[in-house]
Amino acid sequence: MADPRFYSSSGPFSLKALAELSGAKLNTGADSGVMIRDVAPLERARPEELSFLDNVKYLQSFQDSEAGACIVRSRHVDRAPHGMALLISGNPYRAYALVAQAFYPVLPSSGRISPSANVAQTAEIGTGSEISPGAVVGEYVRIGANCRVDANAVVGPGVEIGDATVIGASVSLSHSIIGARVTIHPGARIGQDGFGFAIDPAGHVKVPQLGRVLIHDDVEIGANTTIDRGSGPDTEIGAGCWIDNLVQIADNVTLGEGCVIVAQAGVSGSTKLERQVVAGGQSGFAGHLTIGAGARVAAKCGVIQDVPAGATIGGTPAQPIRDWHRQTVLLRRMVREKEKRSDG
Amino acid sequence: MADPRFYSSSGPFSLKALAELSGAKLNTGADSGVMIRDVAPLERARPEELSFLDNVKYLQSFQDSEAGACIVRSRHVDRAPHGMALLISGNPYRAYALVAQAFYPVLPSSGRISPSANVAQTAEIGTGSEISPGAVVGEYVRIGANCRVDANAVVGPGVEIGDATVIGASVSLSHSIIGARVTIHPGARIGQDGFGFAIDPAGHVKVPQLGRVLIHDDVEIGANTTIDRGSGPDTEIGAGCWIDNLVQIADNVTLGEGCVIVAQAGVSGSTKLERQVVAGGQSGFAGHLTIGAGARVAAKCGVIQDVPAGATIGGTPAQPIRDWHRQTVLLRRMVREKEKRSDG
Amino acid sequence: MADPRFYSSSGPFSLKALAELSGAKLNTGADSGVMIRDVAPLERARPEELSFLDNVKYLQSFQDSEAGACIVRSRHVDRAPHGMALLISGNPYRAYALVAQAFYPVLPSSGRISPSANVAQTAEIGTGSEISPGAVVGEYVRIGANCRVDANAVVGPGVEIGDATVIGASVSLSHSIIGARVTIHPGARIGQDGFGFAIDPAGHVKVPQLGRVLIHDDVEIGANTTIDRGSGPDTEIGAGCWIDNLVQIADNVTLGEGCVIVAQAGVSGSTKLERQVVAGGQSGFAGHLTIGAGARVAAKCGVIQDVPAGATIGGTPAQPIRDWHRQTVLLRRMVREKEKRSDG
Repeated sequence: MADPRFYSSSGPFSLKALAELSGAKLNTGADSGVMIRDVAPLERARPEELSFLDNVKYLQSFQDSEAGACIVRSRHVDRAPHGMALLISGNPYRAYALVAQAFYPVLPSSGRISPSANVAQTAEIGTGSEISPGAVVGEYVRIGANCRVDANAVVGPGVEIGDATVIGASVSLSHSIIGARVTIHPGARIGQDGFGFAIDPAGHVKVPQLGRVLIHDDVEIGANTTIDRGSGPDTEIGAGCWIDNLVQIADNVTLGEGCVIVAQAGVSGSTKLERQVVAGGQSGFAGHLTIGAGARVAAKCGVIQDVPAGATIGGTPAQPIRDWHRQTVLLRRMVREKEKRSDG
Repeated sequence: MADPRFYSSSGPFSLKALAELSGAKLNTGADSGVMIRDVAPLERARPEELSFLDNVKYLQSFQDSEAGACIVRSRHVDRAPHGMALLISGNPYRAYALVAQAFYPVLPSSGRISPSANVAQTAEIGTGSEISPGAVVGEYVRIGANCRVDANAVVGPGVEIGDATVIGASVSLSHSIIGARVTIHPGARIGQDGFGFAIDPAGHVKVPQLGRVLIHDDVEIGANTTIDRGSGPDTEIGAGCWIDNLVQIADNVTLGEGCVIVAQAGVSGSTKLERQVVAGGQSGFAGHLTIGAGARVAAKCGVIQDVPAGATIGGTPAQPIRDWHRQTVLLRRMVREKEKRSDG
Repeated sequence: MADPRFYSSSGPFSLKALAELSGAKLNTGADSGVMIRDVAPLERARPEELSFLDNVKYLQSFQDSEAGACIVRSRHVDRAPHGMALLISGNPYRAYALVAQAFYPVLPSSGRISPSANVAQTAEIGTGSEISPGAVVGEYVRIGANCRVDANAVVGPGVEIGDATVIGASVSLSHSIIGARVTIHPGARIGQDGFGFAIDPAGHVKVPQLGRVLIHDDVEIGANTTIDRGSGPDTEIGAGCWIDNLVQIADNVTLGEGCVIVAQAGVSGSTKLERQVVAGGQSGFAGHLTIGAGARVAAKCGVIQDVPAGATIGGTPAQPIRDWHRQTVLLRRMVREKEKRSDG
């Protein structure tokens, strides 16, 4: 059970209800009327709780689990402990997500504007939006309905924010237009000057940054991530992108819809990721590149050329991941063979 | 045109005035009295606006541009669309920077100390300096003239700040002496304890960090960058350095004048970068090294030895970039040849 | 001498007292009654000050130093300048740490709750704890005795904090249980949602994150580091861990006791580091791995498989560091030989 200091469950739900809302199919013989009180990890789940099996690394935990019900792929049905009810799904993690959202829906905004917040007189705050203590909302800001601006966040002058968006604690925003249902986690920095200057041995010359950051709907941005505004063009984050913690997005970068950027990755100025690109942790992209739709970039990969749509790449400099693996293997073998010859 | 929610232009300026302030030369036949209303990217510029061509990747955009005027190198003059006025410069990006600064000068500080700021009674704030809501200024702080301390920034006890310096939103400073015309972007952390402890299986022992951070004039420090104070010696950032977002500068590091450190790079304790070193994105430096003046370090490079002045290095462990590229090429070729033999 | 704007010394101490508290042995002939006024780096130490020699890179500075006393290993005693008193120790850095702690003890909390802090009525603050201006302390928070919550920090609802813990400026905490004597440096983000979503081309589906962050006693967490809460299980940081700046710790990660994680390293979800693992700067760990006790991971290493206890690994993908070095050497040699043949 989730710690009641931090969470409260909306359960119970019947197995039938959970099957319906998650699109999963209840296994034959299971009692669809059984009430499930909560979700829990396989190792900790109790008989009145539901868990899920997605990664086969945890097959043993599944077989040992005391969970009353579990979401699984059809191929793992046979491995279930006796008496466990099964919700069968082609994408157990997605089905679990929907179940867990039912038990733990996003808390509604309190609609309260704290007297300790600093809200400019010209700012417009939509109905139902909550502004927490210490938050600073600048002149001519427009915030939609049912938003949350958490403690000590700073929303700079002129920024616009759509409905049901969450601005986390200590975030700073400026020069930005933010969509609806966006979540920005604590400490993210959005809209500051890009790294724009002309190199000059007599003293580098700053280039005024005159663009914005545009963040479309349903985007998630991780803690302490930085997104610089455009230099003239805009920096743009497409709808449904998920960006992890400590990611750097430079000026004029554009991400297409549904990109996934894992922690500590960095994208240099004016590079374009088309839709559904996945960038692994600590990967890096040089500037002025185009990364084709659906490309997959391995963790730590260093990308210095355009990447075709659908490609999977790895290594530094980046190359097709199969080539990179073969080079790794060949080099290891050459060292081993050389050592054998020295020993022989 | 830049979004008027965030920017207001000081234009128009005549082509003659722009040529003069940028050091560029107007092409023969251009009408020096034409008034330019704004700057804009090549793709979006209108006939009364000025753009620039610096990176040849954008040559096609230049040829298609409707900009009324453009800053270019002399070798691209022939490629200009008919009727476009040209400002010819050996360094178009630098010339554009000066033009854009004319259109969009740095806004003067309001000189207002917000009643919602927390300023210690013993702090001295210079004339014309602005302290925003939620900012906290500690005991015995000294802030020069015409500075800005943005919302929710924290300036710790005893810190000194020169004239016309900007401390961004949610920045924290302690144990630091900061020069004039420095810009510290949101969320940067400057002056906290370095990572100083003696490893001990019975419990690592903390080493009190007794130095400072010295930041000289005209430095720019990126969002969420961290600069630890010295352990006894100081950590020191030379005049005119540009440091990007999410960079780590450890205790006792010294950067000479005019260094450029790109996003997510990290410099370990007591390493010295001499003047004008350029460190690429996600590059890393081991501790106690000396990197010679003007050295250029490729993105993602892992530097574990001293680097001679003027060298260009890449790879991990770092080596002359030419050697690194040859190794990459050789290894790729060996795999291809091996595969051919297997196929044959 | 440390800058009096930031530090005040508790000295002087006699050499005898310093030898006792550091466990070092005074060299024969030294006058144990001599009073030492302060600590200082070798290059700057004056005759009434004490320094230390730990890294042989600084042997010349030791020989040239004017320090009145120095902590050294027995093998360097002969290299001391004439007249310098020596404190002989098997671990000079640890001994120096203890001496420096005597001169510069951690300042006691003022015990003052600032009227500009926002403390919820249901929060419990232990005796002697200090809450600084702009700090926000949520409902049902419990803070132990003699803690410090620095300016503009945000402690979310329900969080518990042990005695003598320091929460730095602009830190945000939520969904966390924090031990005693923990130090969290400015801007760290602890307890936010992990990067949990089910990938779906029709729109990624958020997975509610229902776990916590557990931080045990005597942990140090660097500036702008991010630690996501668990997804159901908890994220857990063992006692005595030291985590540097800009580190990413993902959901469900567990670190055993005494791990050391250097700046900009990243650990992906559900990976377990057993006790005393050392992870170098910018190293990265894939998810769902086990890294055995005492393993040492080189800077920039990319770990994609389990690592046995005690192993030392490097490279990407990670391998035993000796193998990695040999591959590097072999590849360099092959290029050189190929070039010789081309020249010949």
